[in-house]
Amino acid sequence: MEKELEKLVRVRVEALDAILGVPFKVLDDGFVRVMDYMGSDASVVQAARVSYGAGTRKIHEDRGLLRYLMRHHHTTPFEMCEIKFHVRVPMDAWRQWIRHRTASVNEYSTRYSVAIDAAQRTHASGWRKQASGNRQGSEGFLDPEKGAPLSAREESLHDLCRSIYEERLQAGVAREQARKDLPLSTYTEAYWKIDLHNLLHFLALRMNDRAQEEIRAYACVIGEAIVSRWCPLTWEAFKDYRLGSLQFSRLEAEVLSALNRGSPEEAFRLARESGWLEEGPEGFKRNRERQEFEEKLEILRIPPPWGKSGLPDDS
Amino acid sequence: MEKELEKLVRVRVEALDAILGVPFKVLDDGFVRVMDYMGSDASVVQAARVSYGAGTRKIHEDRGLLRYLMRHHHTTPFEMCEIKFHVRVPMDAWRQWIRHRTASVNEYSTRYSVAIDAAQRTHASGWRKQASGNRQGSEGFLDPEKGAPLSAREESLHDLCRSIYEERLQAGVAREQARKDLPLSTYTEAYWKIDLHNLLHFLALRMNDRAQEEIRAYACVIGEAIVSRWCPLTWEAFKDYRLGSLQFSRLEAEVLSALNRGSPEEAFRLARESGWLEEGPEGFKRNRERQEFEEKLEILRIPPPWGKSGLPDDS
Amino acid sequence: MEKELEKLVRVRVEALDAILGVPFKVLDDGFVRVMDYMGSDASVVQAARVSYGAGTRKIHEDRGLLRYLMRHHHTTPFEMCEIKFHVRVPMDAWRQWIRHRTASVNEYSTRYSVAIDAAQRTHASGWRKQASGNRQGSEGFLDPEKGAPLSAREESLHDLCRSIYEERLQAGVAREQARKDLPLSTYTEAYWKIDLHNLLHFLALRMNDRAQEEIRAYACVIGEAIVSRWCPLTWEAFKDYRLGSLQFSRLEAEVLSALNRGSPEEAFRLARESGWLEEGPEGFKRNRERQEFEEKLEILRIPPPWGKSGLPDDS
Amino acid sequence: MEKELEKLVRVRVEALDAILGVPFKVLDDGFVRVMDYMGSDASVVQAARVSYGAGTRKIHEDRGLLRYLMRHHHTTPFEMCEIKFHVRVPMDAWRQWIRHRTASVNEYSTRYSVAIDAAQRTHASGWRKQASGNRQGSEGFLDPEKGAPLSAREESLHDLCRSIYEERLQAGVAREQARKDLPLSTYTEAYWKIDLHNLLHFLALRMNDRAQEEIRAYACVIGEAIVSRWCPLTWEAFKDYRLGSLQFSRLEAEVLSALNRGSPEEAFRLARESGWLEEGPEGFKRNRERQEFEEKLEILRIPPPWGKSGLPDDS
Repeated sequence: MEKELEKLVRVRVEALDAILGVPFKVLDDGFVRVMDYMGSDASVVQAARVSYGAGTRKIHEDRGLLRYLMRHHHTTPFEMCEIKFHVRVPMDAWRQWIRHRTASVNEYSTRYSVAIDAAQRTHASGWRKQASGNRQGSEGFLDPEKGAPLSAREESLHDLCRSIYEERLQAGVAREQARKDLPLSTYTEAYWKIDLHNLLHFLALRMNDRAQEEIRAYACVIGEAIVSRWCPLTWEAFKDYRLGSLQFSRLEAEVLSALNRGSPEEAFRLARESGWLEEGPEGFKRNRERQEFEEKLEILRIPPPWGKSGLPDDS
Repeated sequence: MEKELEKLVRVRVEALDAILGVPFKVLDDGFVRVMDYMGSDASVVQAARVSYGAGTRKIHEDRGLLRYLMRHHHTTPFEMCEIKFHVRVPMDAWRQWIRHRTASVNEYSTRYSVAIDAAQRTHASGWRKQASGNRQGSEGFLDPEKGAPLSAREESLHDLCRSIYEERLQAGVAREQARKDLPLSTYTEAYWKIDLHNLLHFLALRMNDRAQEEIRAYACVIGEAIVSRWCPLTWEAFKDYRLGSLQFSRLEAEVLSALNRGSPEEAFRLARESGWLEEGPEGFKRNRERQEFEEKLEILRIPPPWGKSGLPDDS
Repeated sequence: MEKELEKLVRVRVEALDAILGVPFKVLDDGFVRVMDYMGSDASVVQAARVSYGAGTRKIHEDRGLLRYLMRHHHTTPFEMCEIKFHVRVPMDAWRQWIRHRTASVNEYSTRYSVAIDAAQRTHASGWRKQASGNRQGSEGFLDPEKGAPLSAREESLHDLCRSIYEERLQAGVAREQARKDLPLSTYTEAYWKIDLHNLLHFLALRMNDRAQEEIRAYACVIGEAIVSRWCPLTWEAFKDYRLGSLQFSRLEAEVLSALNRGSPEEAFRLARESGWLEEGPEGFKRNRERQEFEEKLEILRIPPPWGKSGLPDDS
Repeated sequence: MEKELEKLVRVRVEALDAILGVPFKVLDDGFVRVMDYMGSDASVVQAARVSYGAGTRKIHEDRGLLRYLMRHHHTTPFEMCEIKFHVRVPMDAWRQWIRHRTASVNEYSTRYSVAIDAAQRTHASGWRKQASGNRQGSEGFLDPEKGAPLSAREESLHDLCRSIYEERLQAGVAREQARKDLPLSTYTEAYWKIDLHNLLHFLALRMNDRAQEEIRAYACVIGEAIVSRWCPLTWEAFKDYRLGSLQFSRLEAEVLSALNRGSPEEAFRLARESGWLEEGPEGFKRNRERQEFEEKLEILRIPPPWGKSGLPDDS
């Protein structure tokens, strides 16, 4: 711990002060802006050093220590930083957002006030197609010619929903009930406050390819435009050890090891014993674990010892 | 702690086993059903007694101990019980429900699967009027003659939203995007798991008059039909010490004390010094703290020493 | 929400900046100091107003709104403020402190570093007697003449523990194991970060008479010297509605109401039916609920309709 | 979701029922025993399938789905299982245990009751040496001849601490204060309740080599003797994807990829540019990231392209 307990000046981060309150636009009518924050990269380091005592101060420099913490999942020091956002986001994306339980939230209330008069619009070229290989995702876009009538229908639906909402208010219906048929695309606003550790967890999940495009757009802005300014060393370590990392299961590591020892037969044997190589009429049967391993091998530019799997991925 | 560590049989509650899996209907098409649980009133008592050691076992009987815990906000023993529900609820009410962060949740995914084809309908006599005295609430109902056209409009809006949703799916739009204009009244389903302490906190907030009617309907079923069967002694104590309790602030207690000592002048003086009794053109000015105190006095059947406040409540 | 989204300057509280880093002494060798913070009374108000929309801004003034939030347990806006402390505290008190799970913590590690060479000493006049009426508490002090030999024994025990600890380190024993016989009174240090809502909950429990004196000393300093400077309006409301409040159960409210209606017989009947007035050889039998009610009546200066209970409290 | 909502029978796991209440011994006088539980592997699967809807039921079989969830960090379904333990553990290990904030806890209170009369003893051959390469760990044991006097000293210290504790109680000192100089090795007992997801997180950290031996002993028993019986498919997946997994950072993956493409020069260049290969007087300077990567290469049986680093690890 510190040897001298002196009066302090509050930690500040100039690069973040420079954008405090400034909205970053997201989607057609949404935004994220930083309202307040506490701490910096230095606060993470300081918290970690409570554990080390004063003596080790010389050995590690800050960047190395931060990277060590990130690499080894020593997560508590990252909780020492806190940030508060003001966000404007479609309710449909907010439904996913609010699933992160470790944040503090105050949302705009449509019981107290009239609902925000804006809903997320999709342009003719913005309609995404259902993914074939991933039941929960999307891939590619509809032809804008096919999209145009969908967008037109959407616009008139938004108008109708709003006019029905207003009819109800006019008739004296309570706001809390009048809102019940607003579309999920209606924008809401909220203050959202979270510590850096839990924010990084949010970003790891929501910047991921598997996240839905709308919330990913918010996550990318928060990560790349905000966290990168606030805690640049933490952000760098996060990209190296979380976003860009590759993880191998026990079996995958054994197969990889066999390949690296020049024993493709051993690799083949391990894979077969694990049920990765059952044969079907058109080559190996679909096996998710094998396919995911093949994707990692491709990143490492290692050909699988069992050749191409020969089957389309239709999970 | 227990002196003998013997093999145990798992605690069960017959009255809850008898309704396991059985749906209790809520609203027009929703339900709550218990899927699983752990513990009972006896588990709360057992946990509390860890703190007391064996010696005090004779002194308190279970009911008294449970009541003591509830009265003094000794909340951790109530965390030793856990319950898991399967609920079907309009997304609009679910938006409030999910704000309780201390539960575990798995919700039906409209990214993986087609959205549930049901939305909460409001009958002609079910349209609530905006409350005048409480900006966030409702009071009374619209005349069914005024409600009928609103219900008709709603029905056609629901049909339109659904057919637009299906058009999009037909056109190949990803489920995650096609759903964006479903109305908030669309039903969703989820597993919701929570411990008894946090469940009681949920019930205290959501069985309250100020809660929105829809979520209050669920909370009342959970409390009165389920918790009452599961942990009857806890439920009784909860009703006595939470739902039915009256709380007085420091100032309110002082005013009450003055009244009981037969010093209405002292009570009047305290109230005036606290700014409760500023005069306006038509009697005392509106003052929320005074009005809330008057409501409590009315429960106690004590007339306020300053007479009727004479002003409508228009908060 | 704000109508104009403009660049902001970070909220600061001068009265707190003035003591940032300054240690407040607690016990013989402990302290609390503020390391960092985020937000102020104004941040609570701002968060609450997200729910009201811009239009209500004129109606409530800040103080009234804050008091309303506190009175009605609208707790989420208070989560928008965050504070980080550096504390030095005996491990025995820390064991209680760390039970509050909603904080972020980094504690000095005696695996990495040699344990802090200080233990809490008790002076001859500081030995507290076991409470008779409250199994978990203390009341009054031992005669210093009886305390003096206890203090002398303690001092030599502390010295012995430390020299055994150092012997082990000298012999090459790992720090993580050498520490195992340090006394619970050994000081530790930590960073402790928590939001304002959860801090107030901590203070309500730990400033209470029933809290152990050591942790109460820390809680009082945090409340009276720090929160009072940081968020003075919140602190005032907390004292009025939490620390100084009186709560009556459903039954207690009914009895109180009967007394106020001038029906002591009705009050008597209610009490008897609830089992408060069972007679023993020397008056009413001990009954905790009745005794706690009598204590509240005494605060209100109302004599109980059943006379003095006549029995010592020996819970 | 289920198509038919029928009466259910509560899920049970015979293999766990068979050991309910039975203490598993840990350390010299500690234990872990299961008191209660809720759910099974099947509950995890059921929760995951809420997201998939009925249609996908045929595609995945349970084991495959569980493994998929574990591999892709879909953690919420694992929260649907809950377990409650009764543990007896030295306070020193409990200090680490209690840092896991996502559990419910009721600990034996030494304010209410006399402290447990047992402290963890270390035998002559049980004294561990300070690790040289890891500031926080231990490695190997002291010679029992050197350990014997330490054990003898410990025994007399334990006896002295206890007799001082009892002296204080005899003198009338409150239990809450008398205990202040008990050694950290004193045993305590608690109920500890946690969901399966958070339990696995606890196990991943506390079964790890870097965890202190005492708490690791408890974690291993919980994992290997209890979770393996309770949720065997989850346990298998946990061992494959958590305990036995290898993670590579972005840079490490790039170096590995270069090696696999047969470009050791490229691997060397990447490593040098990242500062891994700074030269000192006796070979490469110590670099933690490089050394950790070399350890992973060794597991894969791949020699580093820059030869042996030639320096002892003295972090």
